[in-house]
Amino acid sequence: MKLWQKSYSLDQQIEAFTVGQDRELDTFLAPWDILGSLAHVEMLCSIGLLAAEELQQLQAALRKLYQIAVTEGMTVEPGMEDIHSQVEYLLTRELGDTGKKIHAGRSRNDQVLVDLRLFFRAEVAEISRLMKALFDALLGQAAAYKDVLLPGYTHYQAAMPSSFGLWFSAYAESLVDDLRLWQSIYHTLNHNPLGSAAGYGASFPLDRTLTTRLLGFEDLSYNVVHAQMGRGKSELQLSYGIAGTAATLGKLAADVVLYVSQNFAFLSFPDELTTGSSIMPHKKNPDVFELLRARCNSLQALPVQISQLTAGLPSGYHRDFQLLKEAIFPALQQLKECLQILTYALPKAKPAERLLEDERYRFLFSVEAVNQLVLEGLPFRDAYRLVGEQIANGTFDPPREVKHTHEGSIGNLCLPEIRAKWERTAQGFPFEQVEKAIRQLAGQPY
Amino acid sequence: MKLWQKSYSLDQQIEAFTVGQDRELDTFLAPWDILGSLAHVEMLCSIGLLAAEELQQLQAALRKLYQIAVTEGMTVEPGMEDIHSQVEYLLTRELGDTGKKIHAGRSRNDQVLVDLRLFFRAEVAEISRLMKALFDALLGQAAAYKDVLLPGYTHYQAAMPSSFGLWFSAYAESLVDDLRLWQSIYHTLNHNPLGSAAGYGASFPLDRTLTTRLLGFEDLSYNVVHAQMGRGKSELQLSYGIAGTAATLGKLAADVVLYVSQNFAFLSFPDELTTGSSIMPHKKNPDVFELLRARCNSLQALPVQISQLTAGLPSGYHRDFQLLKEAIFPALQQLKECLQILTYALPKAKPAERLLEDERYRFLFSVEAVNQLVLEGLPFRDAYRLVGEQIANGTFDPPREVKHTHEGSIGNLCLPEIRAKWERTAQGFPFEQVEKAIRQLAGQPY
Amino acid sequence: MKLWQKSYSLDQQIEAFTVGQDRELDTFLAPWDILGSLAHVEMLCSIGLLAAEELQQLQAALRKLYQIAVTEGMTVEPGMEDIHSQVEYLLTRELGDTGKKIHAGRSRNDQVLVDLRLFFRAEVAEISRLMKALFDALLGQAAAYKDVLLPGYTHYQAAMPSSFGLWFSAYAESLVDDLRLWQSIYHTLNHNPLGSAAGYGASFPLDRTLTTRLLGFEDLSYNVVHAQMGRGKSELQLSYGIAGTAATLGKLAADVVLYVSQNFAFLSFPDELTTGSSIMPHKKNPDVFELLRARCNSLQALPVQISQLTAGLPSGYHRDFQLLKEAIFPALQQLKECLQILTYALPKAKPAERLLEDERYRFLFSVEAVNQLVLEGLPFRDAYRLVGEQIANGTFDPPREVKHTHEGSIGNLCLPEIRAKWERTAQGFPFEQVEKAIRQLAGQPY
Amino acid sequence: MKLWQKSYSLDQQIEAFTVGQDRELDTFLAPWDILGSLAHVEMLCSIGLLAAEELQQLQAALRKLYQIAVTEGMTVEPGMEDIHSQVEYLLTRELGDTGKKIHAGRSRNDQVLVDLRLFFRAEVAEISRLMKALFDALLGQAAAYKDVLLPGYTHYQAAMPSSFGLWFSAYAESLVDDLRLWQSIYHTLNHNPLGSAAGYGASFPLDRTLTTRLLGFEDLSYNVVHAQMGRGKSELQLSYGIAGTAATLGKLAADVVLYVSQNFAFLSFPDELTTGSSIMPHKKNPDVFELLRARCNSLQALPVQISQLTAGLPSGYHRDFQLLKEAIFPALQQLKECLQILTYALPKAKPAERLLEDERYRFLFSVEAVNQLVLEGLPFRDAYRLVGEQIANGTFDPPREVKHTHEGSIGNLCLPEIRAKWERTAQGFPFEQVEKAIRQLAGQPY
Repeated sequence: MKLWQKSYSLDQQIEAFTVGQDRELDTFLAPWDILGSLAHVEMLCSIGLLAAEELQQLQAALRKLYQIAVTEGMTVEPGMEDIHSQVEYLLTRELGDTGKKIHAGRSRNDQVLVDLRLFFRAEVAEISRLMKALFDALLGQAAAYKDVLLPGYTHYQAAMPSSFGLWFSAYAESLVDDLRLWQSIYHTLNHNPLGSAAGYGASFPLDRTLTTRLLGFEDLSYNVVHAQMGRGKSELQLSYGIAGTAATLGKLAADVVLYVSQNFAFLSFPDELTTGSSIMPHKKNPDVFELLRARCNSLQALPVQISQLTAGLPSGYHRDFQLLKEAIFPALQQLKECLQILTYALPKAKPAERLLEDERYRFLFSVEAVNQLVLEGLPFRDAYRLVGEQIANGTFDPPREVKHTHEGSIGNLCLPEIRAKWERTAQGFPFEQVEKAIRQLAGQPY
Repeated sequence: MKLWQKSYSLDQQIEAFTVGQDRELDTFLAPWDILGSLAHVEMLCSIGLLAAEELQQLQAALRKLYQIAVTEGMTVEPGMEDIHSQVEYLLTRELGDTGKKIHAGRSRNDQVLVDLRLFFRAEVAEISRLMKALFDALLGQAAAYKDVLLPGYTHYQAAMPSSFGLWFSAYAESLVDDLRLWQSIYHTLNHNPLGSAAGYGASFPLDRTLTTRLLGFEDLSYNVVHAQMGRGKSELQLSYGIAGTAATLGKLAADVVLYVSQNFAFLSFPDELTTGSSIMPHKKNPDVFELLRARCNSLQALPVQISQLTAGLPSGYHRDFQLLKEAIFPALQQLKECLQILTYALPKAKPAERLLEDERYRFLFSVEAVNQLVLEGLPFRDAYRLVGEQIANGTFDPPREVKHTHEGSIGNLCLPEIRAKWERTAQGFPFEQVEKAIRQLAGQPY
Repeated sequence: MKLWQKSYSLDQQIEAFTVGQDRELDTFLAPWDILGSLAHVEMLCSIGLLAAEELQQLQAALRKLYQIAVTEGMTVEPGMEDIHSQVEYLLTRELGDTGKKIHAGRSRNDQVLVDLRLFFRAEVAEISRLMKALFDALLGQAAAYKDVLLPGYTHYQAAMPSSFGLWFSAYAESLVDDLRLWQSIYHTLNHNPLGSAAGYGASFPLDRTLTTRLLGFEDLSYNVVHAQMGRGKSELQLSYGIAGTAATLGKLAADVVLYVSQNFAFLSFPDELTTGSSIMPHKKNPDVFELLRARCNSLQALPVQISQLTAGLPSGYHRDFQLLKEAIFPALQQLKECLQILTYALPKAKPAERLLEDERYRFLFSVEAVNQLVLEGLPFRDAYRLVGEQIANGTFDPPREVKHTHEGSIGNLCLPEIRAKWERTAQGFPFEQVEKAIRQLAGQPY
Repeated sequence: MKLWQKSYSLDQQIEAFTVGQDRELDTFLAPWDILGSLAHVEMLCSIGLLAAEELQQLQAALRKLYQIAVTEGMTVEPGMEDIHSQVEYLLTRELGDTGKKIHAGRSRNDQVLVDLRLFFRAEVAEISRLMKALFDALLGQAAAYKDVLLPGYTHYQAAMPSSFGLWFSAYAESLVDDLRLWQSIYHTLNHNPLGSAAGYGASFPLDRTLTTRLLGFEDLSYNVVHAQMGRGKSELQLSYGIAGTAATLGKLAADVVLYVSQNFAFLSFPDELTTGSSIMPHKKNPDVFELLRARCNSLQALPVQISQLTAGLPSGYHRDFQLLKEAIFPALQQLKECLQILTYALPKAKPAERLLEDERYRFLFSVEAVNQLVLEGLPFRDAYRLVGEQIANGTFDPPREVKHTHEGSIGNLCLPEIRAKWERTAQGFPFEQVEKAIRQLAGQPY
């Protein structure tokens, strides 16, 4: 049963190839597709293309389907091509001719556009919540270990005193930058494409301002060709958000893998977060963090995976866009999983104490010695040469005390300022308005 | 002359390899490096590490150098490793020991961090201005040709009526989405890393809040490890901005290349924008737009070029970061060039008139016919089948009139709304505050 | 049941994350894992670590399992971590302590190395067979339409006379280049890693030369650290093979999508290879070829997906490698699917006749006119200018005859030479020796 | 002076944009362009399009230019568009009308195709020579340090005994795999595209078999459309060769950076191969190897940079291809530089002695203990559990002796076999035949 099918039948191999993973992936879109239809029918009624009674029937049926999609999930049946056909089929089965009327003034092209934007918008919201949980976990660990010193490295060479407080909270502050990127992506997603039909609008007197309000969008994606170009562009922007945040998480995981090596031994984890070896009984391997690192690294390729599908294509819909789903849907799930695992695992990290007493790290304090001389009046370059000579001829006796006081240093982590930065940024998301609109459309109390 | 050099000399081949393109690329950073030093010395004086008189001398000398860097440019001399050494050398040559004092409390690591952020911040500002010029050009063409119809394609198949007004303004509205992404990147760049030293802060009582204000940053990059991680992360975010905008421009160029083909003949350009063939005297090739397409496509690889340099590296500085410059600096210039060329070329585009009278495009109106039947009361699916049968048996007589009235359709382009969207978004850039701070620091009237 | 598990139990969320898609993907490896074990036990017996009787029992049991794996497939049961554990479990269930003995002298690391090489080797062989089928289909179409002319384009501008014979056979010859790349990859895969244990060899007196012969490898991957580094490197080389061939197929698909557009109308396909539109009853869209193009374009990102997982990692095993499977396994299937679909679809392509009589293509013959003048004695540059002037002032009257005679031109396609090129290249694959060894090991007649 | 220029003049900004870096990059092509012309004129004479006397003049002049191009280099003058125009201009200046005749029967399209193939072919030959030098250096170090033990790691965890001999020679054997890939690429490059003209052949009775022989190609790229498609495809294959070899070198560099960290201290280098810090006088940083790692990682992005320029484009020339040069030319130079630096630096590496006596590495021998029990008759899984318990309750007393004897293990490195593998592979390059043809064409003694 394909909506556009005439009389001939497709070869089965070709059909499997063209349907691809759509049936599975479209289950993610089910509730959003129904919401899109709820907005569309209310609008159709407002411009006289549906009778009030028809609207009532359709709303009741669609809200029932929405409830099912949200609670039990909705599958695309074997004979159906996609979720749009599935929903329309269920509706027509229940309401007959009235069900057939909801496709007036739109195309599967703008149905999928609106479904994707609603889905992506909700995914970004969910990601921002998971990022907050990780942010809190990081700040918690930073506070707990704020005075535990750690060698700081440059070039993989022990360089200067750092601390676990500094290390944990560095990643917290990094997440604020990532959140800021997500926010601009959220705003771009939050524009209404409904009404663009097949990418060139419709000759019906659609009221797109109304559907914009009903679906909780902050504005219209006015130009219908632009709305259609959102396909590919939304996914590209999402790929930036995903890759950007994954870059932060991947670096954190890379640090951890190194820090648990016997050659560093800065961190340890309980047994449930390490794995053994099939032939070396002494091993406790950081597989979880290696897989996190690998997953985050692999997500770095996402922007080119997306752009390879779209770059060079002229404007207008192309079937190529179908493959965007199988690139971006799993990536969203993978990023969320990484955030969850890290939020679970990091509070179990146990920093080693008294690391800097190891003879290996005595030169960490050479800069302190240089600075001391500077504070006593020597020009920096001369102090640097003096300490260098002491190190070379073995007379260097390092001070072991740390006296960092400036903003963001080991003696002054500025955790409240970092938290305030998060709060200021997070306020820019219009989550409440969106939530309210969606509940109203779905006929749920708010 | 290398600041860290002791007594041995590097092999020349190795030296050439390690210096790489830094001497050329660092010329971009010269004015920003000097501004960073201006802020640093003012702060050093405020915490008692420079006498007021020394500050005065340094400010005078640095402002003179700034003037040179801005007007004539400043090159890194052969013996010098980078721009930081060059500036310090010039300063020391003029002021002797006082010049040597400016390195106290910082490292080349945070010098380059602050240089890059100031440079990138200015580049994003410039890009946003060039985008505005292209936006205006596109809206101008959209208004000029708002009633000239154009076949709209899906699957490279002629599908529905479109218009040049719709086509030009689609790209204008797309640029607003790109601008929004740039803005979040701008805000992330606009945080002060100065004071992070080699990535672990300093034992001097630096006043980072002061340098933040002096350099016009909107906030601190508090945590010094986070500030250091900005290396790589800034470039990654810039790569998203560049690739994102390039994706829009590349699609526009791809459209143009197709539209000037004899097989479409939708657009033509004056001779100075086309080139000939060395063996086919009849050709007028769209080389400019092919190169724009190619450049924009090639910029799609930038995010992985950047992430390949940084993914998997643990926190802390690595020399690998040096290669980030040669990836991101040319890309910024290339994007700006693409924006300029398009802004120059698009106003010269001449749309063809009366395209839709061609028999090839008669079926474009089949949806109008379907919609007409729907407005007359038929359910959509039935109307669709009816018109399909008319087409199949040759009795289809299309209406040729276009009656699109809804927001963003060919009959209602919403150009003022699109312009308003740009304005609202552009307001979020704090360009004026930044400009004011920079002028004050440089000792220039504002 | 995990082989390395001691007494504690992993948190379930963590377990799901670490197992990932291994259970599904490992089913591809089942027969190869069993063959690896068959070679290993024969070798263990030869060095006295298994009694002859034990060997016999193990061989019988393993060959039975092999038969099952090949005919019915073998799944990894829920409690099992991977296919290696599954096979060992089945063996131990049947043979008790004897089953436990097969892990002596190896590690899961070299088990998965050998499984992957055997699997990949077979996949490359299969791909080369599918490429041959497509090659034949292309040459068949080239021969069938060798005299049907087609406009040749440069810059999307009609440029010179071409032919369908030339177009079809161009892709056939391209496949020879792709095959050559596959062959070097095949040879690199065809080296035995077994015996590398966890990447540093074993203290048992293993006879790796024997297992090399038994498994049909052409040589050893001698150095065990090098053998281990094959993980990642094999996948990287495969990604080149896949992306390289996909580039060829993607260009072919891109041509087809364009050629079936109404604006070109060079090719048509029967209904079962096109699809309709949900709102435009007149459309016949080339979805199959768009999806082929998209799939082939998306495979272009594979080399970076792979290298993102491995670049920057030092030598030795890392758990990151697990994710290589989920990148490369589906890509191999996708390439095979593209080859099959094209081999099925291209023979149904129907070239249009008499295309060059269209007035739009009259200038295609301008080069012929220039060449004619050259043959009559004019220097090329002067002839070019003369014809250019005729075109400009409207006096150009093109010759419409095609007189190309040189090798590889429309008048002399050299199809036998192209076929001979394929044959010469294909001979370099040692498929027969491999097949023979595998059958012998599996206890099958040859 | 542009060959295709008629009467109008291009805007200068546009011109700069379209010429791009061609003038600089084309200097690499100068000698090859001249050789291509030498073959072409000899062929033109053989088919009667040049008189014998003209041929003689042209050969003399071209050979003189070749000599200049090879010894002094040849620049593209400001007024010239590319190297082809430059050479033709020099020829015409010397020979007048005779110079103009050499363009008959070809196009700049096939000129650049043949130039690129000849250039790339020579570059691959040079790369293979540099790889051989590195291969020798690695085997040399492997032999010198074959008995010096090194901890072997998995998961960044010390795992099993390895040796410097094993580590150095692992990379030597890896280079053989890379060489094999280069060889298939070389063969694909070594097919003659000359005669394809603008991608659709010529109506002159060209003798392409003759130019194939003259230029030392092993076969024709028969089909002219296929020959034209070599543009993009050659670069794509080269990108695989470059990225593949870079992956090997990058891993080696990553190992070195880690091994010189104080936390490992496995290797040290003389001062000229390390650099200092501007604020930490004690540092000796491995910048050279970090930059090697970074360069090799960045080259991993090359395959997508190339494919972004070509994927999705239909067959036939597009101006987009121009940008291929600026992607691939520097990458070739960078790979050669990496090979040279490593060949220079690795022989200066100084392995640390007696590493395994450190208490940290005592568990490396746990597998030996397990294996010993197996050789004494215990099933592997039971031996594994026993040793695991000893480690857990502190009673494990490791054997410290290494008894690896199998092929490719620390006790039996198989260096001669690895060398033999290189030799066998290297024989497949037809360097001598090519060299001979080139010298003959250039009129040089052989």
